[in-house]
Amino acid sequence: MLDFVHDINTKVLFGKGCIEKLPEELAPLGRRVLLAYGGGSIKRTGLYDTIMKLLSDGGFEVTELSGIEPNPRIGSVREGVKLCRERGIEAVLAVGGGSVIDCAKAVACGVFFEGDPWDMIRTSRRRMKALPLAAVLTLSATGSEFDDSGVISNLETHEKLGAILTPPAVSFCDPTYTFTVSKYQTASGSADILSHIFEGYFSRTDDSDVFDGLAETVMKTVIKYTPTALDEPENYSARANLMVCSSIGCSGIPEYGKRGTGWPCHAMEHELSAYYDITHGVGLAILTPRWMRHILKKDPTVTPRFARFARNVFGITEGSEAELAEKGIDAIDAFLRSVGLPTCLSELGIGEEHFEAMAEHANRGGRLERAYVPLTKEDVIGIFRACL
Amino acid sequence: MLDFVHDINTKVLFGKGCIEKLPEELAPLGRRVLLAYGGGSIKRTGLYDTIMKLLSDGGFEVTELSGIEPNPRIGSVREGVKLCRERGIEAVLAVGGGSVIDCAKAVACGVFFEGDPWDMIRTSRRRMKALPLAAVLTLSATGSEFDDSGVISNLETHEKLGAILTPPAVSFCDPTYTFTVSKYQTASGSADILSHIFEGYFSRTDDSDVFDGLAETVMKTVIKYTPTALDEPENYSARANLMVCSSIGCSGIPEYGKRGTGWPCHAMEHELSAYYDITHGVGLAILTPRWMRHILKKDPTVTPRFARFARNVFGITEGSEAELAEKGIDAIDAFLRSVGLPTCLSELGIGEEHFEAMAEHANRGGRLERAYVPLTKEDVIGIFRACL
Repeated sequence: MLDFVHDINTKVLFGKGCIEKLPEELAPLGRRVLLAYGGGSIKRTGLYDTIMKLLSDGGFEVTELSGIEPNPRIGSVREGVKLCRERGIEAVLAVGGGSVIDCAKAVACGVFFEGDPWDMIRTSRRRMKALPLAAVLTLSATGSEFDDSGVISNLETHEKLGAILTPPAVSFCDPTYTFTVSKYQTASGSADILSHIFEGYFSRTDDSDVFDGLAETVMKTVIKYTPTALDEPENYSARANLMVCSSIGCSGIPEYGKRGTGWPCHAMEHELSAYYDITHGVGLAILTPRWMRHILKKDPTVTPRFARFARNVFGITEGSEAELAEKGIDAIDAFLRSVGLPTCLSELGIGEEHFEAMAEHANRGGRLERAYVPLTKEDVIGIFRACL
Repeated sequence: MLDFVHDINTKVLFGKGCIEKLPEELAPLGRRVLLAYGGGSIKRTGLYDTIMKLLSDGGFEVTELSGIEPNPRIGSVREGVKLCRERGIEAVLAVGGGSVIDCAKAVACGVFFEGDPWDMIRTSRRRMKALPLAAVLTLSATGSEFDDSGVISNLETHEKLGAILTPPAVSFCDPTYTFTVSKYQTASGSADILSHIFEGYFSRTDDSDVFDGLAETVMKTVIKYTPTALDEPENYSARANLMVCSSIGCSGIPEYGKRGTGWPCHAMEHELSAYYDITHGVGLAILTPRWMRHILKKDPTVTPRFARFARNVFGITEGSEAELAEKGIDAIDAFLRSVGLPTCLSELGIGEEHFEAMAEHANRGGRLERAYVPLTKEDVIGIFRACL
């Protein structure tokens, strides 16, 4: 087991109705609050009204930053920073999914950053000084409610970059807020959670038993409950388990003690989203099985880990190690095809015209050459092509 | 899944040599430090010298509280509180196992408590105002390095009571510090970790999949690596996994979303330790299989959970649910007998003379009547008798 540092001081309130504690938890953080949210969904569901009433009754002064995009853009961050400075904002309250929370993190840090927020995103490699942040989660996917990072897009430069920013001080995780999440977004969220686990699970370290076991637990839970959530959107057990998996998935915990892997699928998917603004989880669902098949073929030394995946996640026990490895990939491929997401890039109208540039960019600094199975630019292009 | 609150803001530095970061992590907490430790073991291993040099080079002013007992006593807490007040201590540094860390927690809180520390222990049900606390772990067992509670004994009143105190701000978890832990203490520690998991795992809630999966992972890991640590005391993978299991075991996380169980084995064991000052893990190892057999017989509705335990922890799949349940208990019983600990109370010279009073006390306020399988005073006496 390799060394690690656990440093997530986010308080999580989990369960139906936990929002009632919002005023109590927010008061120590600040009275002048920036309320950050996305499109109109929180207005349609009534959550906006609930929160505004709690804030108003609690004597908070609210400034709104609305319209934050999926794949949140640097323009929204700039707007939020400006609002915070103009209004003397003391705390940021994000209400939404990972995009809103990521944007809110960047705003909270951007207030203290001298210079353009995009420079902050491009350069941040450690936690930043930030306004305190509270998050109300409405989508189980990115895990932004329980980590310190955020991903911001710049459509002008075709860049989608992750940065270390700040963790929420407190996150409100009420599974009932995800009852209204569409099948498409539910499935995309599950693909995202699974990918966060895959990225760390397929590693060269084999003696981090506790964290590998946690990773397998999260995978099994997502695979068990995603179909339930699709069939019965108001199944509390399903939504609750998926929400917990979201928070653990990107926390870094499932990777503790393990050698870094370069998160290759995320590196490749960020290129897809940056060029085509597609849903992150959809890109991951398309890429992941192709990446698995590519690396298993390229480097058979990873066979035992894929065989373990087949055994421990899908309960497949019949066959040689090589057969198990293939069967595990077949099983996750079948699962990802079963949840109703697009299964190839051509379905999204994406062709190969930018693959060269995307592959070059995904591998900038040679970072994919340090991945679990090192990937060259040609490998990346090959994986993109297999996704067509 | 039931509601829960996750609120553990302890930073954990994990790995060989992490102590080098002690000055950096301690400096923001305070310069005048109370160094709390137990017997001479940290002097024999050289850890005391290492820490004193780091503190001295870092310009810290050190006051020592030494000789903290296993099953730490209220007298040590009183002494620590007095030292803190006299010397204007700003931070407490605990170096040891759970007993030392528990005592240090009580000292850190006791400084701000008006009145005798034993009254604080008797009454505390929520986090207390406390001096900041850092912990250097030398024994994988209690999980005190990653929770907010502590257990303090009062030999005069035959009481051993748990209290909510304060979590460490930072814990240093270096598995190599446990290389010198004896077989007896290693096995006792593993029994303690397992018991922390059992106490939450055997619950009436069946849809907290993620946390049940985590619990099963910890159990499997302890069962896998304890024999390794006994055979090869310097096996880093074994010591590291056990240390991680220690921290997770008592954190409350494996119980998130689950109905409370009353922690019946701990309630009973605390009576054994309070009357006979035995090693906590030993008491738990003796009690647990007897408790399991007792409740399975008393309430067959728990059969499916015990069958799940057999399947998911021991991989036992042959037999009816009732047979699986029995086989699971047989398996954990055999494991606990295999690690070289005393297997019954008579081996420890304990007879039944105090069982009546101990059972009465374990069940004070009728708390064991709210356990997973409710226990009467007669049940508790029956379980104690089965341990003879």
